[in-house]
Amino acid sequence: MSSATKTYTLDGSFKMHRGGSLQSPTLAYETLGSLNAAKDNAVLIFSGLSPSAHVASSDVDRSPGWWEDMIGSGLPIDTDKYFVVSVNSLGSCFGSTGPASIDPVTGERYRLSFPLLTLEDIAESAMLVVRHLGIDCLHTVVGCSMGGMSGLAFCLRHPRAVSRFVSVSSATRALPFSIAVRSLQREMIRSDRLWQGGNYDISEPPITGQRLARKLGMITYRSAEEWTQRFGRERATDPVQPGVQFATEFSVESYLENHANKFSGAFDANCYLYLSHASDMFDLAEYGGSLASGFKKLDLEKALVIGVRTDILFPPQQQQELAAGIATVCEDSKLVELDCVRGHDSFLVEMDAFRPVICEYFDSCAP
Amino acid sequence: MSSATKTYTLDGSFKMHRGGSLQSPTLAYETLGSLNAAKDNAVLIFSGLSPSAHVASSDVDRSPGWWEDMIGSGLPIDTDKYFVVSVNSLGSCFGSTGPASIDPVTGERYRLSFPLLTLEDIAESAMLVVRHLGIDCLHTVVGCSMGGMSGLAFCLRHPRAVSRFVSVSSATRALPFSIAVRSLQREMIRSDRLWQGGNYDISEPPITGQRLARKLGMITYRSAEEWTQRFGRERATDPVQPGVQFATEFSVESYLENHANKFSGAFDANCYLYLSHASDMFDLAEYGGSLASGFKKLDLEKALVIGVRTDILFPPQQQQELAAGIATVCEDSKLVELDCVRGHDSFLVEMDAFRPVICEYFDSCAP
Repeated sequence: MSSATKTYTLDGSFKMHRGGSLQSPTLAYETLGSLNAAKDNAVLIFSGLSPSAHVASSDVDRSPGWWEDMIGSGLPIDTDKYFVVSVNSLGSCFGSTGPASIDPVTGERYRLSFPLLTLEDIAESAMLVVRHLGIDCLHTVVGCSMGGMSGLAFCLRHPRAVSRFVSVSSATRALPFSIAVRSLQREMIRSDRLWQGGNYDISEPPITGQRLARKLGMITYRSAEEWTQRFGRERATDPVQPGVQFATEFSVESYLENHANKFSGAFDANCYLYLSHASDMFDLAEYGGSLASGFKKLDLEKALVIGVRTDILFPPQQQQELAAGIATVCEDSKLVELDCVRGHDSFLVEMDAFRPVICEYFDSCAP
Repeated sequence: MSSATKTYTLDGSFKMHRGGSLQSPTLAYETLGSLNAAKDNAVLIFSGLSPSAHVASSDVDRSPGWWEDMIGSGLPIDTDKYFVVSVNSLGSCFGSTGPASIDPVTGERYRLSFPLLTLEDIAESAMLVVRHLGIDCLHTVVGCSMGGMSGLAFCLRHPRAVSRFVSVSSATRALPFSIAVRSLQREMIRSDRLWQGGNYDISEPPITGQRLARKLGMITYRSAEEWTQRFGRERATDPVQPGVQFATEFSVESYLENHANKFSGAFDANCYLYLSHASDMFDLAEYGGSLASGFKKLDLEKALVIGVRTDILFPPQQQQELAAGIATVCEDSKLVELDCVRGHDSFLVEMDAFRPVICEYFDSCAP
């Protein structure tokens, strides 16, 4: 955990959206910049499935965060003007309570006894941190990928606690292609005999299933177009499994192998299962029975929806749907469709395309 | 194996394209219709990765074949006019010699001692059957999916043995997205501990890995668009693993589960690995050093390239590339891009779209 990470532990029970509760859950969070006297400059960031609360470096922790080039002094989300709050999602494994945490009631890890997790729970638990920090109304909620849906849940449930919303490569709900991909990723982990029905030895996690799931992830986070340009049919120069039949031969295979190696062991398998499942379950239409009724529950002064042409997990038509729906209830809303080639991951790697859009947004409504 | 399936066993050794040889390999094949006196009405069909030689029903075997609605009396490839030859690919497990066959030299199954398989070997072994049937020049070679590349290999290597070529949802070579998908499918099988480095117990094959690979296959054989229309966020009515956490919940998951169940056990795991790998390796540019030089080796009187807008494994730009290249060496060539929604599998399931195109082709050059 980053040295910049603080924790807040709820004194009492946290009721989960779909039933069950957590006793005194902890939320790990980081803040950058300062809350102004009017307390109207706070920006809450919801991350995708895998990051920690460490969204950007600071004097306390100089290691780069997951949105390093977006948040900081003089950057698009300018910490000289804004007070940025980033919470590690409930259910994750970087300081916030999740399936890998010890259940204070039993003294054992929750594992699969952790209650069914929803993005509503992630939103509500982030609200605990917001209140803890003494913030009544957030300037903006920003959500990336899964975090865009968590952010939407936040705006739906706490319309008075947020004025503005930025959705980055997200959606109103998952489509069957994304559900199929995530379902298969979860099955890869569950099929690894080391998973042991969730009761794996922490020193011997289901790494094979996790590696397979990560590789499928990479296939859907990037785009076929990028890979055609970048790899073509180039052969790997560093075959990672020399001598093994059917092993790495093309550069694209070597690339996947390197990404799987970097990720493996970094994320708890059960936490991954819970968060992945929560992504499938969220549905704006559950707010009143239809997307239209869901949108009507929003009360936003300003909104921005950004998406990428080559994103296959949260494709352009989902960006258009989200923006069009928000526009029915928010006068100052905007859709920006970027022509990035790196698919869903573009918001993390094509900063030259994303920075101006985020910058223009925050400049136009600076407190 | 279908009762309509015949076999031809080579008397002698078959030299493999990338080294090694097979002693007296057997090729399983089926024929429909009759070879005419001029011997100019023979159509050779190359299948995708998984089918047997049973391409269509006949009086001998009334069970439907894998392209049942395309081949038969009065159908687009009309067996009243054409003599259709369908060969089970070398390396497969439906009668032709492959990794699951007994090596006559050792008396044991080949397994991973089977030599490296290429689509050139599939083309050359099909040529053995063509010669065995007394055919000097084929009217048309038709290849679907992987079979389109096998067919291309055939046309490149035996320009005098074929006058016309039909490529259905295929390409000049695999792009990195398809390579990544197939590489991951192979890794799923290799990661199953029952695979045992290829030495699995035939009664206990690596079914878990094969099921995962099949599900990933289905995700890439169909299209996100189809699934949005067909399933949306509909819940499964028949949860196949009730009570199991993270198990089937959405209709799309139930659909994948049913497909995996149907396929599992039907295909030998090692054969799958060899054929999948061969699909990655084929490259028209290996014929002379570039795609242009490869195309120049073709000598075709007529050609048809058909593809589908929603195919992500053999996408539209690959259809355009193939058709444009063939057009540089063949006066009567045509590209048809179909607006089917069912992705790569459309040629098997959207027959109303494919039939007229294939029908027009064969009617226009009937012997």
